[in-house]
Amino acid sequence: MKNIDYFKNPIKHANIRQGMTIAEIANEFDKCAFGAGRLAKAIRIYRAMQADDVTRFFGLAGAMVPAGMRQIIVDLIKNGNINVLVTTGANLVHDMIEAFGGEHCQGECTVDDVELKGARIDRIYDVFLSDEHFTTFEKQFDEIVTDIVDRSPKRPFTISEFLKEIGRRIADKNSILRAASDFNVPVFCPAIADSSIGLQTWIFGYKRNLQVDTFKDIRQIMDICYNAKRSGALFVGGGVPKNFIMQSMLLIPKGFDFAIQLTMDSPETGGLSGATLDEAKSWGKIGERAETVTVYSDATITLTLIVAAMRDQITL
Amino acid sequence: MKNIDYFKNPIKHANIRQGMTIAEIANEFDKCAFGAGRLAKAIRIYRAMQADDVTRFFGLAGAMVPAGMRQIIVDLIKNGNINVLVTTGANLVHDMIEAFGGEHCQGECTVDDVELKGARIDRIYDVFLSDEHFTTFEKQFDEIVTDIVDRSPKRPFTISEFLKEIGRRIADKNSILRAASDFNVPVFCPAIADSSIGLQTWIFGYKRNLQVDTFKDIRQIMDICYNAKRSGALFVGGGVPKNFIMQSMLLIPKGFDFAIQLTMDSPETGGLSGATLDEAKSWGKIGERAETVTVYSDATITLTLIVAAMRDQITL
Amino acid sequence: MKNIDYFKNPIKHANIRQGMTIAEIANEFDKCAFGAGRLAKAIRIYRAMQADDVTRFFGLAGAMVPAGMRQIIVDLIKNGNINVLVTTGANLVHDMIEAFGGEHCQGECTVDDVELKGARIDRIYDVFLSDEHFTTFEKQFDEIVTDIVDRSPKRPFTISEFLKEIGRRIADKNSILRAASDFNVPVFCPAIADSSIGLQTWIFGYKRNLQVDTFKDIRQIMDICYNAKRSGALFVGGGVPKNFIMQSMLLIPKGFDFAIQLTMDSPETGGLSGATLDEAKSWGKIGERAETVTVYSDATITLTLIVAAMRDQITL
Amino acid sequence: MKNIDYFKNPIKHANIRQGMTIAEIANEFDKCAFGAGRLAKAIRIYRAMQADDVTRFFGLAGAMVPAGMRQIIVDLIKNGNINVLVTTGANLVHDMIEAFGGEHCQGECTVDDVELKGARIDRIYDVFLSDEHFTTFEKQFDEIVTDIVDRSPKRPFTISEFLKEIGRRIADKNSILRAASDFNVPVFCPAIADSSIGLQTWIFGYKRNLQVDTFKDIRQIMDICYNAKRSGALFVGGGVPKNFIMQSMLLIPKGFDFAIQLTMDSPETGGLSGATLDEAKSWGKIGERAETVTVYSDATITLTLIVAAMRDQITL
Repeated sequence: MKNIDYFKNPIKHANIRQGMTIAEIANEFDKCAFGAGRLAKAIRIYRAMQADDVTRFFGLAGAMVPAGMRQIIVDLIKNGNINVLVTTGANLVHDMIEAFGGEHCQGECTVDDVELKGARIDRIYDVFLSDEHFTTFEKQFDEIVTDIVDRSPKRPFTISEFLKEIGRRIADKNSILRAASDFNVPVFCPAIADSSIGLQTWIFGYKRNLQVDTFKDIRQIMDICYNAKRSGALFVGGGVPKNFIMQSMLLIPKGFDFAIQLTMDSPETGGLSGATLDEAKSWGKIGERAETVTVYSDATITLTLIVAAMRDQITL
Repeated sequence: MKNIDYFKNPIKHANIRQGMTIAEIANEFDKCAFGAGRLAKAIRIYRAMQADDVTRFFGLAGAMVPAGMRQIIVDLIKNGNINVLVTTGANLVHDMIEAFGGEHCQGECTVDDVELKGARIDRIYDVFLSDEHFTTFEKQFDEIVTDIVDRSPKRPFTISEFLKEIGRRIADKNSILRAASDFNVPVFCPAIADSSIGLQTWIFGYKRNLQVDTFKDIRQIMDICYNAKRSGALFVGGGVPKNFIMQSMLLIPKGFDFAIQLTMDSPETGGLSGATLDEAKSWGKIGERAETVTVYSDATITLTLIVAAMRDQITL
Repeated sequence: MKNIDYFKNPIKHANIRQGMTIAEIANEFDKCAFGAGRLAKAIRIYRAMQADDVTRFFGLAGAMVPAGMRQIIVDLIKNGNINVLVTTGANLVHDMIEAFGGEHCQGECTVDDVELKGARIDRIYDVFLSDEHFTTFEKQFDEIVTDIVDRSPKRPFTISEFLKEIGRRIADKNSILRAASDFNVPVFCPAIADSSIGLQTWIFGYKRNLQVDTFKDIRQIMDICYNAKRSGALFVGGGVPKNFIMQSMLLIPKGFDFAIQLTMDSPETGGLSGATLDEAKSWGKIGERAETVTVYSDATITLTLIVAAMRDQITL
Repeated sequence: MKNIDYFKNPIKHANIRQGMTIAEIANEFDKCAFGAGRLAKAIRIYRAMQADDVTRFFGLAGAMVPAGMRQIIVDLIKNGNINVLVTTGANLVHDMIEAFGGEHCQGECTVDDVELKGARIDRIYDVFLSDEHFTTFEKQFDEIVTDIVDRSPKRPFTISEFLKEIGRRIADKNSILRAASDFNVPVFCPAIADSSIGLQTWIFGYKRNLQVDTFKDIRQIMDICYNAKRSGALFVGGGVPKNFIMQSMLLIPKGFDFAIQLTMDSPETGGLSGATLDEAKSWGKIGERAETVTVYSDATITLTLIVAAMRDQITL
């Protein structure tokens, strides 16, 4: 840190006026430290990531679809802000539940879960979901997979091929899987068996010879990484989406050029979910001179703000 | 939970467009769950708390002044949004450091702290602060306290009286202590000795007969509580400010009518800082039918948004 | 809560003497609340789970093998305390790295990661690992998979079959995969592609026709669930292992009879990793009257203590 | 980090056998990383801190007395392991509640707090406490303070003098305040007004001329710091106790030689409670070459283990 000017960025203090837009508030955050300062940095990095020569990865863990982030994800896909989506089976199942007419509801986390069970309600923190939507999901999903197997001589599928086939058959254009199919955004879901898709496909598997390969997806994501001129990743939460995106850069010489992490997981547990982006530099997953930031804050808030602030910028 | 309609509030999913104001984004948060949904609820409660018959408490822990929240606090005082401020010695010291010309700077948390020490820089997470600002603080603070003791026959002071005397002598109108003095907002700081004010007053105490009583403040805050028609509290972080505000309602029959908590502390440690607002109901600190919400997210982000959204509403 | 005796278990306060065994300390924890009280409850439940008619699931997330928990897992397998293991690819890769002669080292988390990269060292929080161990892993793993494909006419494998074939070929009897193979404990790893196994199998896949099916494992774990008289789960961390074990009970009428969660993830993020065990009751994954406890504390500490205290009990 | 041997401490993996003592388990922790490795380091540092020339500070935040840690604190005082105690008003109030015959009980955190209020039960996470114990506390505390004022011509008190006078009048030898008085361990509690002691002294203050000075305590703690040959601090939680102990070293040239932090607060919030011990080095509160460690885990567990392992060592 020799010759560093430690005092080149004095904190100016956020100043709130009436009727501010999110872009204006982002400028106020930029004067601050802690989460506010980091959020401003995330906005700057996310805007920089929208350059034409950047391949944009999006890691989506957590229960973001049940929590109300579905439309934001879909719009990011439609607008070209996501080139590669890596997510969990749960987010895809809940995307389909809504595509098939089901809904998630605002609830409470301080309830009697045994009473909920009696009412056939499933709880996801402060979200309620009727069991009956799973019944609908099972029926519609079975029809889709039946059609896929009937029409597809090619076997076995990779997981992303399978998801693309599903996406093509979803009527709801505001479905993540449908939008990804429409806009040719590959969806990777390495732990797909770890979801109701897994349970359903298993039931279905007895009837039909559906085959989905565990490993073959990796070729596709590696090809994307090798062909990227520059690359950036936005991680919402950790888990498999974060690790899978990170490892895809492990064999690529230069690593990610941009990385943003929106999480409440702290590094102190030692797990990968909370690992710092610096740690990823030791592995070479992130480039030595990459622009990176972690915002420790609820991702439903920070993702919304980053996307809103990015939209404003693009308009200008 | 009998006869409750679990499904009355379906999640609509946030929808981001260009150029949104923070009030518009708050409406999008309101469609969601998790932190986004809670933030929308906090905004609603904070707006309701601005009614004329509500006495508004503000608990300010954490290093919010160094992080860039000073102007927001000052404006809340000036605009009548804070009727009682309870804070830490550290926030008041850093308020005075800025009032006396010092500054906090955006830094990094991944630095060599021994190297910083060599450069005479103090670190507060990702904020840097030159040691020399403490020297200035010490000199100016000594002059203020000398003047207080010289002119004040009345002894001993309560802590809030002492802080008001200090505030009156600060030239910077954008100081929290000055604004509180100007607008007659009492400032309570039970742990004032636990700060550089404590260290300074101790040095000063050898020369002059400054006496500040530990307990006598409580009469004033209890009187405020007894006289409040309705009452609400916004807690930024936990610590002494939260506990002191909470305990002031312990002997008041009805407890707080509104309470908002902005924190990253979770209840699982068992400490008061992370305790749920429901727990406070068992003690009677918060009323049984109070409107309450905790937003688990970085307070520099959420406080800014709540204040911005509240301002919009008040305009309308 | 009518007619409940709220005061039937007064806290007696832990009392520490010289030379205490872990079983004696567990009795002291049992007098307490917060983490200590919960740990004592976890010990009681874990002992109860060792009954002959209980099928015992073990969910292993986090970087537990690099952190020094490998021998404990292996001994749990050898002693019959684990009947079903669900884990991450990372834990299996690091198990093999040690089986093939590599080692993890105690390091520091406050280091310059770019400097580590220059020294070809990978960091996992405060664990250091030389890049060269991955080279050894790649070579040995390639030999094992070549042998598997050469000798196995049966294709495609399920993931657990594939892992069993690997385990059989590992020489180190203190390997988790080898012990699981030796003691017929099925190992499930739904996100296996999300690890260096994935990367390696992909490289290998170009040469040989290795096929591993994504979904077919679920039949085996469902059969285990259906055949269990009683069932219990110990979750170390969250992630895929937790969700996969939980979902395996989703279609079983009675859910788990016992569940212990050792985690630092709190429910407030809304993610499955930090979800309470009560939440799982709403889904029916855990039985309404199950004995459950979550210990919010570092799992390297609590797992060690629970296993040690369980061993003591079994001796008596 | 030039010429550092990154690989000098290979992880050996914990090995659990029947009937292990806590000292033996500590040796197993010492082979590991993450929390287990840090706990082993904390044990080593805590043992080193017991040397004759070390002045030992103990910062006690959180609800440790209600949670069952009272006897451990008392025994540390009686055995000379604590030379200076800094704590919260709450811990002292709950110490007195037990001294006066009241009790805390193991409860649940998933209860209806409004129902608890109806039953006149106060909740502290998973601890229940009857309101009536506060009534007893109030009566007995009033008698003690009346006696103090009647017999003490010297006014005003420092806070620690006042606490010593209280401790002398407590009959229960297993009280923290009584033990501290018996063994001449000064107790500092800067935020004493922020507790039921504050509320009570205020009520009492109307009748009698009790005067307790806010700042004068600092002289005593500064004298202790200046006279210490070497110094060490064990912090249970953060809050005022941590900050007050830290700031007492701010003006001492060499800072603490040893520091251990047992907490669940992470640095990412920017608050002092979760601040790293390295950050304190930039301020000079902790010496550049001090031995320090933070264990991120529930303190009711880790404090018990550290004390137990220290006792074993001292026997040898």
